[in-house]
Amino acid sequence: MQITSYTDYALRVLIYLAKIPKRQATITEIADFYNISRNHLVKVVHQLGGKGFVKTTRGKGGGLSLQRPPEMIHIGEVVRSMETHFHWVECFDPAQQQCRLLPGCGLKHLLARAGDAYLQVLDAATLADLLSDTDTVESPKKKMSDNLK
Amino acid sequence: MQITSYTDYALRVLIYLAKIPKRQATITEIADFYNISRNHLVKVVHQLGGKGFVKTTRGKGGGLSLQRPPEMIHIGEVVRSMETHFHWVECFDPAQQQCRLLPGCGLKHLLARAGDAYLQVLDAATLADLLSDTDTVESPKKKMSDNLK
Repeated sequence: MQITSYTDYALRVLIYLAKIPKRQATITEIADFYNISRNHLVKVVHQLGGKGFVKTTRGKGGGLSLQRPPEMIHIGEVVRSMETHFHWVECFDPAQQQCRLLPGCGLKHLLARAGDAYLQVLDAATLADLLSDTDTVESPKKKMSDNLK
Repeated sequence: MQITSYTDYALRVLIYLAKIPKRQATITEIADFYNISRNHLVKVVHQLGGKGFVKTTRGKGGGLSLQRPPEMIHIGEVVRSMETHFHWVECFDPAQQQCRLLPGCGLKHLLARAGDAYLQVLDAATLADLLSDTDTVESPKKKMSDNLK
């Protein structure tokens, strides 16, 4: 049971950018920091741009930055934007609705309610909340500087 | 974002058995009903037995039945028993804790809280609740009989 690495990476990109509000970052720098695939991050960042979370400035000194303040980025919105589907079980997928318990299965309704409860917790939190809860934010420059070039 | 098909099948087995309280079922019969792999179900049923949800009676007229009444089987307990892990993101896996935001990442704590909210909804529901919420329970023999031999 997990969210996709795609969404995980999206959240990590946003956390990284929120930690360096005074400058812009490159994809390579973020990939190096987390030691994850740059190619994966290119797709993630492209989608983050399309969804209004990240903006790209071209030219010298350009790079990635947040399109909105961290207080305006709700984690639930990010997860809903990045996850391609919320098929908690097979029957949530319209292409796979072969279970003979359908329609009106109590399990499907229960799992949908549980999924809503999961997302509601994420809806209530913003990117800013994550930063204030995170040890590394207390001295972000020190922690981040190890890998910032 | 989803639970494993393994857990999905476990829940379907329990629903099936709960629908036929007066007799026992075979794995083949359940696999046929849902049109899913018998081999998969053998493993699922074995684990359901080990966890105290299902009992197997050998001999003529034997088969599978619930080890407890549906009111005593909480869905959260089943999901917790069947899912091998709750690694909402990579860093929940002790073997994969390479993210430089650790320790004390606010994202990890948030996702753990969201996961708890998800499981709490499932903890509050029993197998009996699923049956009463399900259309098919209103005339279980009619619905089930299509494939019961």
